Amino acid sequence: MTTVQARVEAALERALPPREQPPQRLHEAMRYAVLGAGKRVRPLLAFAAGEAAGAAPEDLDTVACAVELIHAYSLVHDDLPCMDDDTLRRGRPTVHVEFDEATALLAGDALQSAAFELVASGTAAGDRGARLEMVRLLAQAAGSRGMAGGQAIDLTAVGRTLTLPELEFMHILKTGALIRASVTLGARCGALAAAELDRLDHYAKLIGLAFQVVDDVLDADASTVTLGKTAGKDAAQGKPTYVSVLGVERARELAEELRREAHEALDGFAERARRLRELADFIVLRRF
Amino acid sequence: MTTVQARVEAALERALPPREQPPQRLHEAMRYAVLGAGKRVRPLLAFAAGEAAGAAPEDLDTVACAVELIHAYSLVHDDLPCMDDDTLRRGRPTVHVEFDEATALLAGDALQSAAFELVASGTAAGDRGARLEMVRLLAQAAGSRGMAGGQAIDLTAVGRTLTLPELEFMHILKTGALIRASVTLGARCGALAAAELDRLDHYAKLIGLAFQVVDDVLDADASTVTLGKTAGKDAAQGKPTYVSVLGVERARELAEELRREAHEALDGFAERARRLRELADFIVLRRF
Repeated sequence: MTTVQARVEAALERALPPREQPPQRLHEAMRYAVLGAGKRVRPLLAFAAGEAAGAAPEDLDTVACAVELIHAYSLVHDDLPCMDDDTLRRGRPTVHVEFDEATALLAGDALQSAAFELVASGTAAGDRGARLEMVRLLAQAAGSRGMAGGQAIDLTAVGRTLTLPELEFMHILKTGALIRASVTLGARCGALAAAELDRLDHYAKLIGLAFQVVDDVLDADASTVTLGKTAGKDAAQGKPTYVSVLGVERARELAEELRREAHEALDGFAERARRLRELADFIVLRRF
Repeated sequence: MTTVQARVEAALERALPPREQPPQRLHEAMRYAVLGAGKRVRPLLAFAAGEAAGAAPEDLDTVACAVELIHAYSLVHDDLPCMDDDTLRRGRPTVHVEFDEATALLAGDALQSAAFELVASGTAAGDRGARLEMVRLLAQAAGSRGMAGGQAIDLTAVGRTLTLPELEFMHILKTGALIRASVTLGARCGALAAAELDRLDHYAKLIGLAFQVVDDVLDADASTVTLGKTAGKDAAQGKPTYVSVLGVERARELAEELRREAHEALDGFAERARRLRELADFIVLRRF
């Protein structure tokens, strides 16, 4: 896992515009938002899915970076005063605190463009039709019927009591869509039968949900120092979470159930899915 | 021109998510930001360039909508309090005034994704390789070395005196890049020799600059009612403009020079470039 993380770090470093190129301050903010921090869960998933699909590592750099750039842009915008108004992220001041609001807004915008530029100009395996399909899937996962849509639902949920299905719908868009895209784009760098792709997509749905459940448990449990971002914020803001809807014990059980189902979805992949299994465990058993 | 505008309006209506689909408020804000207003200069350019390249109109809908979605997203973000803090756009309250800041932020984000989804899933002419290249060009035009980069330079220019080359560099990125992409993407829906594509690109550079010069003249001259957005803001905010650098008379002359050069760039296209010529005239001679 550490090897892949280091590989992704180097690829992100290359994918981002150099600091000294104008507009410097914007490029600095983009690099600050992306480099040197983060668990790189989405790139790890892209690499693990690519391994299950027999893709070459060098072909996976592009898609792994693209999903991380989309993720990083969403964090920058999510932290802005008009959204979550957060000052701490990945153990450091958020982008609008370190730079300024306007620069953070533009850095997020430009990171989104950069993700699509990367997929479109990358040398990832697969013919051009496959890469065009990757652009489409990534755009869908990021847009109003994906991540941005989930954040919009999140806004309207503040102070309300959601049912479990409503909460799930929000998270399927908000975090699930990009996690699914990470797995799918990684898998499409290799070669898989349609039925196998479906199984990986099912796996991705399960761990996407598990990821959010665990996030909510950690947010309720952990301290700000362990988490690297402000802890207990969701509860303080009156946001519905898995913990507020289910209670912390039942939320923990749900995460464990999802982990087991995720493993089941990988039956038939044998050794090829070793890393995907490890990631399911990592996502559910992590402490930060 | 009116026929194309109506065609683009209908295509945008189809390209945007339906109002009744959740998340409704986000989709309403996206539609509000895009539909029913705007001169549609970029779609008109895409159609006119497509005509010069012998593209079929039905193939041009996708790229015309995509460039307009990018433009609309940039206006929504540009109007936010942390940027230009504007309350009036296209004769109506800006998106964050009509909705709220967070919704405006997400609507802009989702409009950007929608533009790339459109190009990637569209049925535009050309093989998949050509469409992948369109994604790349559009992403580049929107990103940190294009439109977003130009806006970042604009931020740092407030209260400073720029030289003419510095002002030009800012505008080549801020408005020029997307105007060039509009022409280029339209042209690539048809078939042109590389030398002809280069001439259209040169035309696009000239009218991109002319567009901004005229914008500055109008901003200095016109009233808020004629303009449909707050007039005189640039001067009030201490932003350098062509008028502040050159004076209003010299700025008018520059626009006229650029119009003449744009016509020259179209020599050799004969009747095929009729609409591109009309648009060069429209951009320079408009009064709003």
